[in-house]
Amino acid sequence: MRRTAYEMTSEEEIEQFLGEMSFGTLVMQGEEWPYAVPLNYVYHRKSIYLHGSKAGHKMEAIRACGNVAFSVCKEYALIPSYFSDPLLACPATSYFKSVLIRGRAEAVEDAAEKADVLGALMRKLQPEGGYSPIDPADPAYVPRLQGVAVFRLNAESLSAKFAFGQHLNEERFAKVCEGLRERGTEGDLHTADLMEKYTGRCPVE
Amino acid sequence: MRRTAYEMTSEEEIEQFLGEMSFGTLVMQGEEWPYAVPLNYVYHRKSIYLHGSKAGHKMEAIRACGNVAFSVCKEYALIPSYFSDPLLACPATSYFKSVLIRGRAEAVEDAAEKADVLGALMRKLQPEGGYSPIDPADPAYVPRLQGVAVFRLNAESLSAKFAFGQHLNEERFAKVCEGLRERGTEGDLHTADLMEKYTGRCPVE
Repeated sequence: MRRTAYEMTSEEEIEQFLGEMSFGTLVMQGEEWPYAVPLNYVYHRKSIYLHGSKAGHKMEAIRACGNVAFSVCKEYALIPSYFSDPLLACPATSYFKSVLIRGRAEAVEDAAEKADVLGALMRKLQPEGGYSPIDPADPAYVPRLQGVAVFRLNAESLSAKFAFGQHLNEERFAKVCEGLRERGTEGDLHTADLMEKYTGRCPVE
Repeated sequence: MRRTAYEMTSEEEIEQFLGEMSFGTLVMQGEEWPYAVPLNYVYHRKSIYLHGSKAGHKMEAIRACGNVAFSVCKEYALIPSYFSDPLLACPATSYFKSVLIRGRAEAVEDAAEKADVLGALMRKLQPEGGYSPIDPADPAYVPRLQGVAVFRLNAESLSAKFAFGQHLNEERFAKVCEGLRERGTEGDLHTADLMEKYTGRCPVE
């Protein structure tokens, strides 16, 4: 990451973001080409967990090359150039949070551990419930737990970039913040709040 | 792709989706680890174009390994298990569109071509205008066009997966469609429409 002003190092912020997002992009090396696939995930016990069918390209690719990366990104707002510059197109950009984890993908084989991970995934993506608890002793779940592949990413590195105008000078920062509040969608107002939060700056009143 | 029922081959559908989305994830091979970075892009003249600063890890990685992939994904709705199953958690899933392009990243060096590409990117992300046209002869733009790196992905392959319940039997398909219409957010209603569109099926009335 070149612009260190964007770097986010707060574990709490990163974990909150990973808890809010529902999917990321798993990327893998290949002999000739890299491969990428979007997947739902859960961040559980300080690791990213993924699941899928035991068949298929994704699982083959993970087995062939355990060194993977997982990218999670949310774009909060497109920032038009005219918020801060009346003439040039160059300041047009977007504000976003992005996390990149690199690590070894390790298969989870134990049925109880699979059930624990999939339970955490369900609590995240279906917090309202409406299903029998995933019990590895439940005869209805036993064959399904056998048939599903679960992977844990044993992280070697994690980097996070939260880009909310940190590199702007005071004047342009204030103009972008004002522009967002004037455009005024729910997402814009939230983004303006995040600009203030992550820079500690307040816009000109 | 294992489930061919999800495969989308319509160029029109794929191009429309690429035109609607604002960012994707560029993935690259590395000596030890793959690298991924979310980027705004424009699909222009039948190619994906990316841009960024000439410095930085991303451009180094692209130069070191021109064989890249670009993944664009949108999640339309989380589908809770109870839409189609009163007991088991297993049917919980999400419906999404995903496009993966693999190809060689080639630097665009010509100022006029850079200006054309960046103009297309601006028309996509800032359709309301509000900037001087990006003219490679405009003295204000000349140094900026020199300083920006623009890449074209020369696609070797493109695959698209539009997952909207194609694999469900009629009964479960109808239940998921009904579940979405009952839950009834704007995204849910749109997703139910897409289920019908991409399967040619109509839900049970």
